Amino acid sequence: MLRNWARLGWGLPYFVTPRNGALLQRFSHKLQGNSAALILRTEKSIDQAVPNPSWSQEMMLQFNRYMEMTKDGSWQKLPSYQSFSDHLPEGPWKEELQNRKYRFFLRSIDGEGKGFEYAMFLKPSEKRVVAIFQIGPYLEGPSGFAHGGAIATILDSTVGASVIYISCRVVTANLNINYKSPVELGSVVLVDTRVDKIEGRKIFASGEVWSVDGQTLHAEATGLFIELQPQKETDSSSSL
Amino acid sequence: MLRNWARLGWGLPYFVTPRNGALLQRFSHKLQGNSAALILRTEKSIDQAVPNPSWSQEMMLQFNRYMEMTKDGSWQKLPSYQSFSDHLPEGPWKEELQNRKYRFFLRSIDGEGKGFEYAMFLKPSEKRVVAIFQIGPYLEGPSGFAHGGAIATILDSTVGASVIYISCRVVTANLNINYKSPVELGSVVLVDTRVDKIEGRKIFASGEVWSVDGQTLHAEATGLFIELQPQKETDSSSSL
Repeated sequence: MLRNWARLGWGLPYFVTPRNGALLQRFSHKLQGNSAALILRTEKSIDQAVPNPSWSQEMMLQFNRYMEMTKDGSWQKLPSYQSFSDHLPEGPWKEELQNRKYRFFLRSIDGEGKGFEYAMFLKPSEKRVVAIFQIGPYLEGPSGFAHGGAIATILDSTVGASVIYISCRVVTANLNINYKSPVELGSVVLVDTRVDKIEGRKIFASGEVWSVDGQTLHAEATGLFIELQPQKETDSSSSL
Repeated sequence: MLRNWARLGWGLPYFVTPRNGALLQRFSHKLQGNSAALILRTEKSIDQAVPNPSWSQEMMLQFNRYMEMTKDGSWQKLPSYQSFSDHLPEGPWKEELQNRKYRFFLRSIDGEGKGFEYAMFLKPSEKRVVAIFQIGPYLEGPSGFAHGGAIATILDSTVGASVIYISCRVVTANLNINYKSPVELGSVVLVDTRVDKIEGRKIFASGEVWSVDGQTLHAEATGLFIELQPQKETDSSSSL
């Protein structure tokens, strides 16, 4: 399976793909250790995980609550850009990717507040990421409620973000979602995820989508991620 | 669990939500038997599951292939509108929902070809739905490849469509996805889904995402759906 694999669906990018295996090598010195997720921050790109006029009072309340918790360093806010290329340092790779006009799935809906509005926070000591999501009116499944695919997307993204903290060189093998209660369009939810267990190259992680008052469990998911073996730069197109 | 539930994420609408339980009753005479999915067609709304200039040659080839198979009646093309309200007959309910400006998650990205381009086909004799999806550049996860949430979305939508054929009054309880091989942005994939088994109120369904040449299995999923009990109109807000 690993030979076919070079992808993982989450809100933060990772650097292993058949196409840009070399890219991983180029920046691998920046992806060491536990700071993997944070090193992807770049100063020249616009962080979209910040308040805008579409954010509801509840969204602001939750955002400010977590921002407050970053002050002692126990939590860290993760950046979120519009495309993978925005995470790259300046250079020809970045320029090439920018020309392709790709956009991250979670940042693809035009109009503030229409789609996913979110911010993610990492608590390194617990290998945990909490995301605050405001569910916009363009995420409809059944009338008035979020699409099951939208719920899967926010779980995949946030669980994946907690795994990035362990390793940037992983692929998702499985995502198993139990839907418990519908999420109303316009509401704000908390997505609480963490790495549960590491067995060799297997990383087990899980997460839940909760109402902000913690009273309603909307959905829960487990994920299995596989860490890829280090590869030689010259072998980037075949060793995955 | 069923008390909390009134949602299902797929590309076609269904009529059971806490908010519009009464709506189900109002149109339930139209939702009988095996024509459930088809009765949702309305002449006044614009079907978006038709070719546009963004469709690639491969997308057109697959679309024409399945359209050809509809000629003897063994396959039927399913309509796809921009929002739940577009599926409703004219009337105050429709007007009320239209005022909310919701959009289906799969039709929420502006710009032809930027997001999901797709068409679904039903084969009633096999309780099977096949969807043709063209994966746009705004569905990025890792650079150059579709987001895991986008893959979950197309699986949820298409597996759900096969279940609608059995019953419009169902909820998703579980979606379990194995990711096998990444899907390149710009590519066309076939999503082949069917109802596998019905045990009382449980409907088991499954599906796979294949490359158009049938050589690469990109992802596979199983879904468990629960059929809701019929309810009284006056009890619409509490019996779910």
